[in-house]
Amino acid sequence: MCQKIRMENVAIVLHDTRIPENIGAAARAAANMGVGQLIVSAPRHLDMERVLKVATHSASGLVKAMKVCSTLPEALGGFNWIVGTTARLGGTRRVNSSPADLAAKLIPMSSENRVAVLFGPEDRGLTNEDLQLCHELVNIPTAGFSSLNLAQAVMVMCYELFQARTRAPECHIPRLACRHELENMYEELKETFARIHYINHENPEHRLDKARNFLSRYQLRAREVSIIRGLCRQVVRYGSQCYKDGAAAGAAGSPKNQETG
Amino acid sequence: MCQKIRMENVAIVLHDTRIPENIGAAARAAANMGVGQLIVSAPRHLDMERVLKVATHSASGLVKAMKVCSTLPEALGGFNWIVGTTARLGGTRRVNSSPADLAAKLIPMSSENRVAVLFGPEDRGLTNEDLQLCHELVNIPTAGFSSLNLAQAVMVMCYELFQARTRAPECHIPRLACRHELENMYEELKETFARIHYINHENPEHRLDKARNFLSRYQLRAREVSIIRGLCRQVVRYGSQCYKDGAAAGAAGSPKNQETG
Repeated sequence: MCQKIRMENVAIVLHDTRIPENIGAAARAAANMGVGQLIVSAPRHLDMERVLKVATHSASGLVKAMKVCSTLPEALGGFNWIVGTTARLGGTRRVNSSPADLAAKLIPMSSENRVAVLFGPEDRGLTNEDLQLCHELVNIPTAGFSSLNLAQAVMVMCYELFQARTRAPECHIPRLACRHELENMYEELKETFARIHYINHENPEHRLDKARNFLSRYQLRAREVSIIRGLCRQVVRYGSQCYKDGAAAGAAGSPKNQETG
Repeated sequence: MCQKIRMENVAIVLHDTRIPENIGAAARAAANMGVGQLIVSAPRHLDMERVLKVATHSASGLVKAMKVCSTLPEALGGFNWIVGTTARLGGTRRVNSSPADLAAKLIPMSSENRVAVLFGPEDRGLTNEDLQLCHELVNIPTAGFSSLNLAQAVMVMCYELFQARTRAPECHIPRLACRHELENMYEELKETFARIHYINHENPEHRLDKARNFLSRYQLRAREVSIIRGLCRQVVRYGSQCYKDGAAAGAAGSPKNQETG
């Protein structure tokens, strides 16, 4: 059985946020991924109208239940495991997890523990003092510009937590054509290719091999084999019809050019 | 050796976007993750001042090099592999990748192919017609509210692509047919199917869509496109030859059954 993070035990904590729209956008991301709680700690400017507009209807429940704390220790008091996010590395910053590593670890952690994922203010992130309250740090890897938009960083973390599984779900592969079905198809292709002079009778293998190489790269399904065989039969019918049309025109003494389809 | 996606070969394509700030926020996400190009196709409202403000300095280079196209086929013409993103599932929407699966696949794909990741408008996403241009669809899994903020969806995809790594030696993927080559092939297939009455003139789309769905699952190479087009031409020649043979036989007063083989 595949295990997941208990998202209802996970909270997003936004500390010292400057821009109300970022709280709303973070709320929407958290709601999309099933996060259980949103907490804001010491927000600089909390305009609920602006928050709710960006949160959209989908996150309105999370925003209405949002807890507002005046200090960070108050916001984090009830949590068993606290993860700090940081864009800056080095120094005393003991980053020990990538988002994916963190997510894997939180699967067992979240089953009986309340987990907070903490984000600092837009312009400078969490201070060293803030990080003292965290059990571990996580950094979202970037290509060059390490400063992410706050709500986008929240989205990446929530996405990683939501989709973490102990065992990757297997991709579904539908029933493929069996060898018999494939060989019958190749036989019909060979006959059709010969009939339309796409291959010549003396050395039929060259172009047939090409078609075989082409088709064998794919995981052909039974119904796709039927499509190909149906096309072969239609080409044969087409030739017969052209011949009949020609014959009728010839017998009438007016073998004009073939009409185009 | 650990292989990665060649991010310089990846483009984010935003189609029919309503809100300039979303283009800017998507640009910032793309720049954070090292995406090579940003393209907007048929934007509703392109206010560059608003785009640049949200993009921040970090993405200003990407925004200034941004390509603006008036139609989606124009935007996608030069790409070898096109991934459509969709929040809606079911019906004919053949979602075959999670973001992580997609990212793993794009490691070999991106080494010699230009890859576009396509996002639809904020309010309703890509249409079925838009999706016809895609080789595969990807869906960002959500807990309940499936509609993501556009720029946040771009961030999740870019993040997955940027951090994808593989250790296993991957199979080599050669250059694939680009969108132009594919569309020319579909056009020729359509004409041929109509000519041989495999599709009827009143409702040509049904069987053509089937063929499209079938072929778009595959990573068609340029020379395979040539094989398919060569076969189309050969079928046309075959019909002409059958007609001539019939005409000759009819004129000679002996329109016997068409010879086989």
